[in-house]
Amino acid sequence: MPEMEIRALTFDVFGTVVDWRNSIAREGATWGPKKGLEIDWFAFADAWRGLYQPAMEKVREDQMGWVNLDALHRMNLNQLSDQFGLGGLSETDLKHLNQIWHRLDPWPDAVAGMERLKQKFTLASLSNGNVALIVNMAKRARIPWDMVLGAEVAGHYKPQPEAYSISVGLLGLEPQQALMVAAHNGDLVAAAAVGLRTAFVRRPTEYGPNQDFDFDPKHKFDFVAEDFLDLADQLDC
Amino acid sequence: MPEMEIRALTFDVFGTVVDWRNSIAREGATWGPKKGLEIDWFAFADAWRGLYQPAMEKVREDQMGWVNLDALHRMNLNQLSDQFGLGGLSETDLKHLNQIWHRLDPWPDAVAGMERLKQKFTLASLSNGNVALIVNMAKRARIPWDMVLGAEVAGHYKPQPEAYSISVGLLGLEPQQALMVAAHNGDLVAAAAVGLRTAFVRRPTEYGPNQDFDFDPKHKFDFVAEDFLDLADQLDC
Repeated sequence: MPEMEIRALTFDVFGTVVDWRNSIAREGATWGPKKGLEIDWFAFADAWRGLYQPAMEKVREDQMGWVNLDALHRMNLNQLSDQFGLGGLSETDLKHLNQIWHRLDPWPDAVAGMERLKQKFTLASLSNGNVALIVNMAKRARIPWDMVLGAEVAGHYKPQPEAYSISVGLLGLEPQQALMVAAHNGDLVAAAAVGLRTAFVRRPTEYGPNQDFDFDPKHKFDFVAEDFLDLADQLDC
Repeated sequence: MPEMEIRALTFDVFGTVVDWRNSIAREGATWGPKKGLEIDWFAFADAWRGLYQPAMEKVREDQMGWVNLDALHRMNLNQLSDQFGLGGLSETDLKHLNQIWHRLDPWPDAVAGMERLKQKFTLASLSNGNVALIVNMAKRARIPWDMVLGAEVAGHYKPQPEAYSISVGLLGLEPQQALMVAAHNGDLVAAAAVGLRTAFVRRPTEYGPNQDFDFDPKHKFDFVAEDFLDLADQLDC
Protein backbone atom coordinates (compact mmCIF):
# COMPACT_ATOMS: atom_id res chain seq x y z
CA MET A 1 0.00 0.00 0.00
CA PRO A 2 1.63 3.25 -1.07
CA GLU A 3 0.06 5.24 1.75
CA MET A 4 1.96 3.16 4.31
CA GLU A 5 5.13 5.08 3.56
CA ILE A 6 3.67 8.57 3.71
CA ARG A 7 5.00 10.63 6.62
CA ALA A 8 3.95 14.16 5.71
CA LEU A 9 1.16 15.88 3.82
CA THR A 10 2.16 19.06 2.01
CA PHE A 11 -0.69 21.36 1.03
CA ASP A 12 -1.36 23.91 -1.60
CA VAL A 13 -3.21 26.68 0.24
CA PHE A 14 -5.00 29.20 -2.05
CA GLY A 15 -8.03 27.38 -3.38
CA THR A 16 -7.17 24.08 -1.73
CA VAL A 17 -7.27 24.99 1.99
CA VAL A 18 -8.86 28.45 1.80
CA ASP A 19 -11.63 29.94 -0.32
CA TRP A 20 -9.90 33.12 -1.49
CA ARG A 21 -12.64 34.33 -3.85
CA ASN A 22 -15.57 34.29 -1.44
CA SER A 23 -13.37 35.51 1.43
CA ILE A 24 -12.22 38.59 -0.47
CA ALA A 25 -15.74 39.30 -1.71
CA ARG A 26 -17.18 38.91 1.79
CA GLU A 27 -14.71 41.23 3.48
CA GLY A 28 -14.82 43.71 0.61
CA ALA A 29 -18.60 43.97 0.80
CA THR A 30 -18.35 44.98 4.46
CA TRP A 31 -15.19 47.08 4.35
CA GLY A 32 -15.60 48.76 0.97
CA PRO A 33 -18.67 50.89 1.72
CA LYS A 34 -16.92 52.31 4.81
CA LYS A 35 -14.22 53.55 2.45
CA GLY A 36 -16.67 54.85 -0.15
CA LEU A 37 -15.95 52.04 -2.57
CA GLU A 38 -18.71 50.64 -4.75
CA ILE A 39 -17.04 47.67 -6.33
CA ASP A 40 -18.05 44.27 -7.64
CA TRP A 41 -15.80 42.49 -5.17
CA PHE A 42 -16.01 39.17 -6.99
CA ALA A 43 -14.73 40.88 -10.13
CA PHE A 44 -12.06 42.57 -8.03
CA ALA A 45 -10.97 39.25 -6.50
CA ASP A 46 -10.84 37.63 -9.94
CA ALA A 47 -8.86 40.51 -11.43
CA TRP A 48 -6.36 40.52 -8.55
CA ARG A 49 -5.93 36.76 -8.70
CA GLY A 50 -5.56 37.05 -12.46
CA LEU A 51 -2.33 39.00 -12.00
CA TYR A 52 -0.88 36.35 -9.67
CA GLN A 53 0.74 33.96 -12.12
CA PRO A 54 2.21 36.66 -14.39
CA ALA A 55 3.80 38.38 -11.38
CA MET A 56 5.34 35.14 -10.11
CA GLU A 57 6.51 34.33 -13.61
CA LYS A 58 8.71 37.43 -13.54
CA VAL A 59 10.37 36.10 -10.39
CA ARG A 60 10.68 32.58 -11.83
CA GLU A 61 12.37 34.05 -14.88
CA ASP A 62 14.68 35.97 -12.55
CA GLN A 63 13.65 39.36 -13.87
CA MET A 64 13.72 41.01 -10.45
CA GLY A 65 15.35 38.74 -7.86
CA TRP A 66 13.30 37.26 -5.03
CA VAL A 67 10.07 39.12 -4.24
CA ASN A 68 7.68 37.55 -1.75
CA LEU A 69 3.96 37.21 -2.34
CA ASP A 70 2.91 40.07 -0.08
CA ALA A 71 5.02 42.37 -2.24
CA LEU A 72 3.73 40.86 -5.50
CA HIS A 73 0.15 41.26 -4.26
CA ARG A 74 0.87 44.90 -3.56
CA MET A 75 2.38 45.51 -7.00
CA ASN A 76 -0.70 43.87 -8.51
CA LEU A 77 -3.05 45.87 -6.29
CA ASN A 78 -1.43 49.08 -7.49
CA GLN A 79 -2.07 47.95 -11.07
CA LEU A 80 -5.80 47.62 -10.31
CA SER A 81 -6.11 51.06 -8.75
CA ASP A 82 -7.57 52.89 -11.76
CA GLN A 83 -9.86 50.07 -12.86
CA PHE A 84 -11.49 49.76 -9.43
CA GLY A 85 -11.20 53.35 -8.25
CA LEU A 86 -8.81 52.73 -5.36
CA GLY A 87 -7.05 56.07 -5.76
CA GLY A 88 -8.70 57.60 -2.69
CA LEU A 89 -7.49 54.95 -0.26
CA SER A 90 -4.81 55.94 2.23
CA GLU A 91 -1.57 54.00 2.46
CA THR A 92 -2.87 52.44 5.69
CA ASP A 93 -6.03 51.33 3.87
CA LEU A 94 -4.03 49.88 0.99
CA LYS A 95 -1.81 47.94 3.38
CA HIS A 96 -4.90 46.63 5.13
CA LEU A 97 -6.48 45.64 1.84
CA ASN A 98 -3.28 43.97 0.66
CA GLN A 99 -3.23 41.87 3.79
CA ILE A 100 -6.71 40.52 3.04
CA TRP A 101 -4.81 37.44 1.81
CA HIS A 102 -3.76 36.87 5.43
CA ARG A 103 -7.44 36.76 6.43
CA LEU A 104 -8.89 34.18 4.05
CA ASP A 105 -11.36 31.65 5.39
CA PRO A 106 -10.86 27.89 5.02
CA TRP A 107 -13.30 25.74 3.11
CA PRO A 108 -15.84 24.35 5.61
CA ASP A 109 -14.25 20.88 5.72
CA ALA A 110 -10.62 22.01 5.80
CA VAL A 111 -9.76 22.51 9.48
CA ALA A 112 -11.80 19.52 10.67
CA GLY A 113 -10.13 17.31 8.08
CA MET A 114 -6.67 18.59 8.92
CA GLU A 115 -7.19 18.01 12.63
CA ARG A 116 -7.81 14.35 11.81
CA LEU A 117 -4.91 14.12 9.36
CA LYS A 118 -2.57 15.77 11.88
CA GLN A 119 -2.95 12.85 14.29
CA LYS A 120 -1.13 10.60 11.84
CA PHE A 121 0.94 12.84 9.57
CA THR A 122 3.08 15.95 9.67
CA LEU A 123 1.11 18.74 7.98
CA ALA A 124 3.06 21.43 6.13
CA SER A 125 1.96 24.20 3.85
CA LEU A 126 3.65 24.14 0.47
CA SER A 127 2.23 27.34 -0.92
CA ASN A 128 3.47 30.26 -2.93
CA GLY A 129 2.26 32.43 -0.05
CA ASN A 130 5.03 33.92 2.05
CA VAL A 131 5.67 32.75 5.60
CA ALA A 132 4.01 35.69 7.38
CA LEU A 133 0.91 35.37 5.20
CA ILE A 134 0.50 31.65 5.91
CA VAL A 135 1.31 32.02 9.62
CA ASN A 136 -1.12 34.92 10.11
CA MET A 137 -3.83 33.09 8.14
CA ALA A 138 -3.35 30.01 10.29
CA LYS A 139 -3.50 31.95 13.57
CA ARG A 140 -6.77 33.60 12.58
CA ALA A 141 -8.44 30.52 11.09
CA ARG A 142 -6.87 27.93 13.42
CA ILE A 143 -5.29 25.94 10.60
CA PRO A 144 -3.17 23.35 12.42
CA TRP A 145 0.13 23.37 10.51
CA ASP A 146 3.10 21.55 11.95
CA MET A 147 5.31 23.62 9.66
CA VAL A 148 5.09 26.37 7.08
CA LEU A 149 7.15 25.54 4.00
CA GLY A 150 6.88 26.49 0.35
CA ALA A 151 8.07 29.24 -1.94
CA GLU A 152 9.62 31.73 0.47
CA VAL A 153 11.49 29.10 2.49
CA ALA A 154 12.65 27.36 -0.70
CA GLY A 155 13.40 30.57 -2.60
CA HIS A 156 11.47 29.28 -5.62
CA TYR A 157 7.85 29.65 -6.68
CA LYS A 158 5.82 26.59 -7.62
CA PRO A 159 5.76 24.89 -10.03
CA GLN A 160 9.55 25.13 -10.03
CA PRO A 161 10.86 21.77 -8.79
CA GLU A 162 12.98 23.32 -6.03
CA ALA A 163 9.83 24.59 -4.30
CA TYR A 164 8.85 20.97 -3.68
CA SER A 165 12.24 19.31 -3.29
CA ILE A 166 13.72 21.84 -0.85
CA SER A 167 10.53 21.86 1.24
CA VAL A 168 10.43 18.09 1.55
CA GLY A 169 14.16 17.97 2.22
CA LEU A 170 13.72 20.31 5.18
CA LEU A 171 11.34 17.76 6.69
CA GLY A 172 14.13 15.18 6.43
CA LEU A 173 12.04 13.07 4.07
CA GLU A 174 12.44 11.42 0.71
CA PRO A 175 10.01 12.85 -1.87
CA GLN A 176 7.89 9.69 -1.91
CA GLN A 177 7.31 10.07 1.84
CA ALA A 178 5.36 13.28 1.19
CA LEU A 179 1.85 13.55 -0.24
CA MET A 180 1.12 16.79 -2.08
CA VAL A 181 -2.51 17.84 -1.60
CA ALA A 182 -3.92 20.30 -4.13
CA ALA A 183 -7.03 21.20 -6.09
CA HIS A 184 -4.93 21.98 -9.17
CA ASN A 185 -3.70 19.53 -11.76
CA GLY A 186 -0.63 21.56 -12.62
CA ASP A 187 0.61 21.72 -9.03
CA LEU A 188 0.28 17.96 -8.63
CA VAL A 189 1.97 17.18 -11.92
CA ALA A 190 4.93 19.33 -10.87
CA ALA A 191 5.06 17.67 -7.44
CA ALA A 192 4.91 14.20 -8.98
CA ALA A 193 7.78 15.07 -11.30
CA VAL A 194 9.94 15.60 -8.20
CA GLY A 195 8.76 12.30 -6.73
CA LEU A 196 6.06 13.35 -4.29
CA ARG A 197 2.86 11.37 -4.05
CA THR A 198 -0.27 13.25 -5.05
CA ALA A 199 -3.83 13.83 -3.84
CA PHE A 200 -6.30 15.78 -5.97
CA VAL A 201 -9.04 17.40 -3.89
CA ARG A 202 -12.02 18.78 -5.77
CA ARG A 203 -12.76 22.47 -5.22
CA PRO A 204 -15.20 23.03 -8.09
CA THR A 205 -16.35 26.46 -6.91
CA GLU A 206 -12.92 28.01 -6.32
CA TYR A 207 -13.32 30.36 -9.28
CA GLY A 208 -17.08 30.70 -8.94
CA PRO A 209 -19.09 30.74 -12.14
CA ASN A 210 -15.90 31.43 -14.11
CA GLN A 211 -14.34 28.09 -13.31
CA ASP A 212 -13.74 26.06 -16.45
CA PHE A 213 -10.81 23.86 -15.39
CA ASP A 214 -9.56 21.67 -12.53
CA PHE A 215 -12.96 20.07 -12.01
CA ASP A 216 -11.42 16.64 -12.41
CA PRO A 217 -8.04 14.99 -12.12
CA LYS A 218 -6.45 14.94 -15.55
CA HIS A 219 -3.69 12.53 -14.58
CA LYS A 220 -3.29 9.39 -12.53
CA PHE A 221 -2.84 10.75 -9.03
CA ASP A 222 -2.47 8.53 -5.95
CA PHE A 223 -5.66 9.83 -4.35
CA VAL A 224 -8.72 11.73 -5.53
CA ALA A 225 -10.89 13.16 -2.75
CA GLU A 226 -14.11 15.13 -2.57
CA ASP A 227 -12.81 17.17 0.37
CA PHE A 228 -10.40 16.89 3.32
CA LEU A 229 -12.77 14.71 5.32
CA ASP A 230 -12.89 12.26 2.45
CA LEU A 231 -9.09 12.39 2.23
CA ALA A 232 -8.86 11.65 5.96
CA ASP A 233 -11.16 8.66 5.45
CA GLN A 234 -9.03 7.37 2.59
CA LEU A 235 -5.86 7.72 4.67
CA ASP A 236 -7.45 5.92 7.64
CA CYS A 237 -7.30 8.98 9.89
CA MET B 1 4.64 49.23 28.12
CA PRO B 2 7.16 47.47 25.86
CA GLU B 3 5.17 44.23 25.79
CA MET B 4 2.30 46.04 24.04
CA GLU B 5 4.19 45.91 20.77
CA ILE B 6 5.27 42.29 20.92
CA ARG B 7 3.66 40.14 18.24
CA ALA B 8 5.77 36.99 18.29
CA LEU B 9 7.80 35.00 20.77
CA THR B 10 10.87 33.27 19.38
CA PHE B 11 12.29 30.46 21.49
CA ASP B 12 15.61 28.86 22.02
CA VAL B 13 14.82 25.14 22.27
CA PHE B 14 17.66 23.00 23.70
CA GLY B 15 17.70 23.74 27.41
CA THR B 16 14.98 26.38 27.23
CA VAL B 17 11.99 24.36 25.98
CA VAL B 18 13.35 20.82 26.35
CA ASP B 19 15.49 19.10 28.96
CA TRP B 20 18.08 17.46 26.72
CA ARG B 21 20.31 16.07 29.46
CA ASN B 22 17.72 14.14 31.43
CA SER B 23 15.93 13.08 28.24
CA ILE B 24 19.06 11.52 26.76
CA ALA B 25 19.99 9.88 30.05
CA ARG B 26 16.47 8.49 30.49
CA GLU B 27 16.23 6.98 27.02
CA GLY B 28 19.80 5.74 27.13
CA ALA B 29 19.25 3.90 30.40
CA THR B 30 16.37 1.97 28.82
CA TRP B 31 17.77 1.50 25.33
CA GLY B 32 21.46 0.99 26.11
CA PRO B 33 21.23 -2.33 27.96
CA LYS B 34 19.25 -3.84 25.06
CA LYS B 35 22.26 -3.03 22.89
CA GLY B 36 24.80 -4.30 25.40
CA LEU B 37 25.94 -0.79 26.34
CA GLU B 38 26.97 -0.03 29.91
CA ILE B 39 27.40 3.71 29.81
CA ASP B 40 27.06 6.62 32.21
CA TRP B 41 24.40 8.25 30.05
CA PHE B 42 24.66 11.59 31.83
CA ALA B 43 28.37 11.67 31.02
CA PHE B 44 27.54 10.64 27.46
CA ALA B 45 24.95 13.43 27.11
CA ASP B 46 27.42 15.97 28.50
CA ALA B 47 30.20 14.80 26.19
CA TRP B 48 27.96 14.87 23.12
CA ARG B 49 26.63 18.31 23.97
CA GLY B 50 30.19 19.42 24.63
CA LEU B 51 31.02 18.93 20.96
CA TYR B 52 28.04 21.02 19.85
CA GLN B 53 29.50 24.51 19.86
CA PRO B 54 32.86 23.53 18.30
CA ALA B 55 31.05 21.75 15.45
CA MET B 56 28.79 24.75 14.75
CA GLU B 57 31.79 27.03 14.95
CA LYS B 58 33.29 25.27 11.94
CA VAL B 59 30.13 26.06 9.99
CA ARG B 60 30.05 29.64 11.25
CA GLU B 61 33.63 30.07 10.14
CA ASP B 62 32.64 28.63 6.76
CA GLN B 63 35.07 25.73 6.98
CA MET B 64 32.65 23.23 5.41
CA GLY B 65 29.63 24.98 3.92
CA TRP B 66 26.19 24.52 5.47
CA VAL B 67 25.77 21.37 7.54
CA ASN B 68 22.55 20.94 9.50
CA LEU B 69 22.44 19.90 13.13
CA ASP B 70 21.42 16.29 12.51
CA ALA B 71 24.59 15.89 10.46
CA LEU B 72 26.73 17.70 13.04
CA HIS B 73 25.28 15.51 15.79
CA ARG B 74 26.24 12.46 13.77
CA MET B 75 29.79 13.67 13.20
CA ASN B 76 30.07 14.30 16.93
CA LEU B 77 28.56 10.91 17.77
CA ASN B 78 31.17 9.23 15.62
CA GLN B 79 33.86 11.09 17.57
CA LEU B 80 32.53 9.60 20.82
CA SER B 81 32.48 6.03 19.54
CA ASP B 82 35.73 4.83 21.11
CA GLN B 83 35.25 6.68 24.39
CA PHE B 84 31.81 5.18 25.01
CA GLY B 85 32.26 1.82 23.27
CA LEU B 86 29.72 2.39 20.50
CA GLY B 87 31.69 0.40 17.92
CA GLY B 88 29.33 -2.57 18.06
CA LEU B 89 26.22 -0.59 17.14
CA SER B 90 24.72 -1.15 13.69
CA GLU B 91 24.17 1.75 11.32
CA THR B 92 20.44 1.49 12.08
CA ASP B 93 21.19 1.77 15.80
CA LEU B 94 23.49 4.74 15.28
CA LYS B 95 20.84 6.54 13.23
CA HIS B 96 18.28 5.84 15.95
CA LEU B 97 20.64 7.10 18.64
CA ASN B 98 21.47 10.21 16.62
CA GLN B 99 17.78 11.02 16.36
CA ILE B 100 17.43 10.99 20.15
CA TRP B 101 17.56 14.79 19.78
CA HIS B 102 14.19 14.53 17.99
CA ARG B 103 12.75 12.80 21.05
CA LEU B 104 13.64 15.18 23.88
CA ASP B 105 11.06 15.91 26.55
CA PRO B 106 9.94 19.44 27.42
CA TRP B 107 10.45 20.91 30.87
CA PRO B 108 7.27 20.26 32.88
CA ASP B 109 5.97 23.84 32.53
CA ALA B 110 6.87 24.32 28.88
CA VAL B 111 3.88 23.05 26.90
CA ALA B 112 1.30 24.39 29.36
CA GLY B 113 2.97 27.80 29.30
CA MET B 114 3.21 27.84 25.54
CA GLU B 115 -0.45 26.93 25.12
CA ARG B 116 -1.28 30.06 27.12
CA LEU B 117 1.24 32.23 25.27
CA LYS B 118 -0.04 30.96 21.91
CA GLN B 119 -3.45 32.51 22.52
CA LYS B 120 -1.90 35.97 22.30
CA PHE B 121 1.34 35.64 20.34
CA THR B 122 2.82 33.82 17.37
CA LEU B 123 5.20 31.19 18.72
CA ALA B 124 8.22 30.28 16.63
CA SER B 125 11.26 28.20 17.38
CA LEU B 126 14.52 30.04 16.83
CA SER B 127 16.89 27.18 17.48
CA ASN B 128 20.07 25.83 15.98
CA GLY B 129 18.18 22.55 15.55
CA ASN B 130 17.27 21.71 11.96
CA VAL B 131 13.68 21.83 10.77
CA ALA B 132 13.04 18.08 10.81
CA LEU B 133 14.44 17.80 14.32
CA ILE B 134 12.23 20.57 15.69
CA VAL B 135 9.13 19.39 13.79
CA ASN B 136 9.54 15.77 14.91
CA MET B 137 10.20 16.86 18.49
CA ALA B 138 7.06 19.00 18.45
CA LYS B 139 4.89 16.22 17.02
CA ARG B 140 6.00 13.80 19.74
CA ALA B 141 5.86 16.23 22.66
CA ARG B 142 2.92 18.33 21.43
CA ILE B 143 4.88 21.58 21.45
CA PRO B 144 2.48 24.08 19.86
CA TRP B 145 4.66 26.01 17.41
CA ASP B 146 3.03 28.31 14.90
CA MET B 147 6.24 28.19 12.89
CA VAL B 148 9.67 26.58 12.93
CA LEU B 149 12.39 29.12 12.20
CA GLY B 150 16.04 29.39 13.19
CA ALA B 151 19.39 28.25 11.87
CA GLU B 152 18.44 25.99 9.00
CA VAL B 153 15.82 28.33 7.58
CA ALA B 154 18.15 31.32 7.99
CA GLY B 155 21.26 29.49 6.83
CA HIS B 156 23.19 30.78 9.84
CA TYR B 157 23.81 29.34 13.30
CA LYS B 158 23.11 31.43 16.37
CA PRO B 159 24.60 33.63 17.66
CA GLN B 160 25.22 34.97 14.16
CA PRO B 161 22.93 37.99 13.71
CA GLU B 162 21.36 36.62 10.52
CA ALA B 163 19.87 33.69 12.45
CA TYR B 164 17.71 36.20 14.33
CA SER B 165 17.14 38.87 11.69
CA ILE B 166 16.17 36.51 8.85
CA SER B 167 13.86 34.53 11.13
CA VAL B 168 12.02 37.61 12.36
CA GLY B 169 11.87 39.01 8.84
CA LEU B 170 10.11 35.87 7.64
CA LEU B 171 7.38 36.61 10.19
CA GLY B 172 6.95 40.02 8.58
CA LEU B 173 7.93 41.75 11.81
CA GLU B 174 10.35 44.39 12.93
CA PRO B 175 12.94 43.02 15.39
CA GLN B 176 11.38 44.86 18.33
CA GLN B 177 8.07 43.08 17.69
CA ALA B 178 9.70 39.76 18.59
CA LEU B 179 10.62 38.58 22.06
CA MET B 180 13.49 36.10 22.21
CA VAL B 181 12.98 33.58 25.02
CA ALA B 182 16.06 31.72 26.21
CA ALA B 183 17.78 30.31 29.27
CA HIS B 184 21.16 31.48 28.00
CA ASN B 185 22.68 34.93 28.41
CA GLY B 186 24.71 34.71 25.22
CA ASP B 187 21.70 33.92 23.05
CA LEU B 188 19.76 36.87 24.44
CA VAL B 189 22.65 39.30 24.10
CA ALA B 190 22.98 38.33 20.44
CA ALA B 191 19.24 38.69 19.88
CA ALA B 192 19.20 42.08 21.58
CA ALA B 193 22.04 43.26 19.36
CA VAL B 194 19.75 42.69 16.37
CA GLY B 195 16.91 44.55 18.07
CA LEU B 196 14.78 41.76 19.49
CA ARG B 197 13.31 42.07 22.93
CA THR B 198 14.54 39.52 25.45
CA ALA B 199 13.19 37.19 28.13
CA PHE B 200 15.56 35.21 30.33
CA VAL B 201 13.97 32.04 31.70
CA ARG B 202 15.82 30.25 34.47
CA ARG B 203 16.72 26.60 33.78
CA PRO B 204 19.19 26.08 36.62
CA THR B 205 19.37 22.28 36.21
CA GLU B 206 19.95 22.16 32.45
CA TYR B 207 23.53 20.96 32.89
CA GLY B 208 22.84 19.03 36.09
CA PRO B 209 25.50 19.21 38.78
CA ASN B 210 27.98 20.54 36.22
CA GLN B 211 26.10 23.79 35.68
CA ASP B 212 28.18 26.77 36.68
CA PHE B 213 26.73 29.50 34.45
CA ASP B 214 23.44 30.96 33.22
CA PHE B 215 21.85 30.77 36.67
CA ASP B 216 21.03 34.46 36.49
CA PRO B 217 20.57 37.15 33.88
CA LYS B 218 23.86 38.94 33.44
CA HIS B 219 22.40 41.82 31.45
CA LYS B 220 19.31 44.00 31.53
CA PHE B 221 16.76 41.89 29.69
CA ASP B 222 13.13 42.93 29.21
CA PHE B 223 11.77 40.02 31.22
CA VAL B 224 13.18 37.53 33.71
CA ALA B 225 10.95 34.54 34.41
CA GLU B 226 11.15 31.48 36.63
CA ASP B 227 9.50 29.31 33.97
CA PHE B 228 7.07 29.58 31.04
CA LEU B 229 4.02 29.83 33.33
CA ASP B 230 5.62 32.81 35.04
CA LEU B 231 6.39 34.31 31.61
CA ALA B 232 2.75 33.84 30.59
CA ASP B 233 1.68 35.61 33.77
CA GLN B 234 4.04 38.52 33.10
CA LEU B 235 2.74 38.82 29.52
CA ASP B 236 -0.89 38.76 30.69
CA CYS B 237 -1.67 35.46 28.94
